[in-house]
Amino acid sequence: MDIRAGLSSGSKRAAARLITMIENSSKEAIQIIKENYHMTGRARIIGITGPPGAGKSTVTDKLAKLVRKKDKKVAIIAVDPTSPFSGGAILGDRIRMSDLSTDEGVFIRSMGTRGALGGLSKAVHGAIKVMDMAGYDYIFVETVGVGQSEIDIVKIADTVLMVMVPGLGDDIQAIKAGIMEIGDVFAVNKSDREGAERTATEIEVMLDLSGMTEYRPPVKNIIARDNIGIEELFDAIEKHYEYMNHSGNLSKRREKAVEMEVLEIFKEDLLGRIMKLQKSTDYLSALILKVLNKETDPYSAASELSHILSQEEGRVND
Amino acid sequence: MDIRAGLSSGSKRAAARLITMIENSSKEAIQIIKENYHMTGRARIIGITGPPGAGKSTVTDKLAKLVRKKDKKVAIIAVDPTSPFSGGAILGDRIRMSDLSTDEGVFIRSMGTRGALGGLSKAVHGAIKVMDMAGYDYIFVETVGVGQSEIDIVKIADTVLMVMVPGLGDDIQAIKAGIMEIGDVFAVNKSDREGAERTATEIEVMLDLSGMTEYRPPVKNIIARDNIGIEELFDAIEKHYEYMNHSGNLSKRREKAVEMEVLEIFKEDLLGRIMKLQKSTDYLSALILKVLNKETDPYSAASELSHILSQEEGRVND
Repeated sequence: MDIRAGLSSGSKRAAARLITMIENSSKEAIQIIKENYHMTGRARIIGITGPPGAGKSTVTDKLAKLVRKKDKKVAIIAVDPTSPFSGGAILGDRIRMSDLSTDEGVFIRSMGTRGALGGLSKAVHGAIKVMDMAGYDYIFVETVGVGQSEIDIVKIADTVLMVMVPGLGDDIQAIKAGIMEIGDVFAVNKSDREGAERTATEIEVMLDLSGMTEYRPPVKNIIARDNIGIEELFDAIEKHYEYMNHSGNLSKRREKAVEMEVLEIFKEDLLGRIMKLQKSTDYLSALILKVLNKETDPYSAASELSHILSQEEGRVND
Repeated sequence: MDIRAGLSSGSKRAAARLITMIENSSKEAIQIIKENYHMTGRARIIGITGPPGAGKSTVTDKLAKLVRKKDKKVAIIAVDPTSPFSGGAILGDRIRMSDLSTDEGVFIRSMGTRGALGGLSKAVHGAIKVMDMAGYDYIFVETVGVGQSEIDIVKIADTVLMVMVPGLGDDIQAIKAGIMEIGDVFAVNKSDREGAERTATEIEVMLDLSGMTEYRPPVKNIIARDNIGIEELFDAIEKHYEYMNHSGNLSKRREKAVEMEVLEIFKEDLLGRIMKLQKSTDYLSALILKVLNKETDPYSAASELSHILSQEEGRVND
């Protein structure tokens, strides 16, 4: 398959293949992205996050269908928690959207963390670029969970939609305090449930306290399952984008996202070099053993690693 | 205050001060840890995680009280989600435990992520070492959220306690698939609620499927609020530790934890050097701007950064 030709003709198969190559850190994939990087920056990137049980996939599903009605192409990247055993992402939720997946204008991809040392963020960045190059107008990046990595991932979006739900219990305060700053639009899903109004009010109060003046994130009560409130929610997302664009904040946010990405790639490349060193010399294992035997400590070991790597680099550059 | 003397006499204030210094990446703090590193490795580290609303802090609270009854010293490190605005961690949950915090044998610390580029994991590792040096017998590391960073943090524990709760909704499958591998002991909290038995059964079924043979993680129904099932839960944690110790898996796990820590410190140190470079030369901003203007791409920018840093390193070493 000629991936370059496939990409410019908008082939879903070519895009899917390229993302897999990125996940496997293929050099050819990176080369293709480099060549086509000038074609990026056109898609609107919408991050969707919130606590487990909030119904994020249903909300994403309904928003994607609405986007399709407007004759725009949509890509969904679902970022799922690690499963070291299965080595991949959980597709269960995605399979429910089978009516979407047969639509040529919809691309759905699950991405999971592989290995403890990350690399997911780099792969998600790469996948977004591929979707952007392939001509998708909207890219939804949905994350399961409300942890730090998930927050970092949605930070690359132009607009962050925070999906909340009534009755989350004690930890709601903690969640809200942690995510309040990154939400541009709030949805209280399952609003036919008891406590929906209270949840919305609580969010409004926290927004009052945050002291944002220029732009106030709207809070929308929705019932995604029954398609209630989805159009209003989408309008709110569009309005946020317009605000971002006109205020100049969009370029600021994208600048920040590029910085995060460059540093992420930089870190991953270094870890890759360490792993390569480890394969050829067992250097890392020997160092770890020294720490375990208390012959050295983790801080000194890290410095030593850094020194060894820069020596290697010198050798390569000579 | 002489931190070195305070640490060896078990002063809470000295330990607290040292942890703050670690959070601020103080060189002196790192020096103190290096000097005392041979004193670490005695404490039992227990990670406590689970989805929002599961009642993790109550479980931690009750377990800590039980440990105190056995005349052992206990430290609690509560890892909370980011709040870039407040810059700190959420203490709300912790304040509830005021009866514990006045006990000289209990140390409680909240730690939050500061800045998008992490460093929390490194700080938590450091805090654990301080608690270990200060003679705490048990160190509970409790995380809010079920994201990748949180999972990475609990992986440094000898035993991981996964606190679940009935009625978490749709995402429960995803959570379970993501965390099943890291749970050594499972607690179904709030077991007076409807669906508790079903939740326990679901966990058992997933454990059946995981194919673990040598050690089978127990699933305990508890009601932490009423102190029901806490002793049995603690016994299960102790049994897991004994298994780990006798099977030789404890040293394997600690080896893995040291590896994670060394790589984490290594990455953080490098980012620190980049930020220092940025302060003196604005190098990073210029590079980001080139990416934004499509004069280069993120991959090439990361390579350039790596090259510049190794040149800097060469200059320092010469």
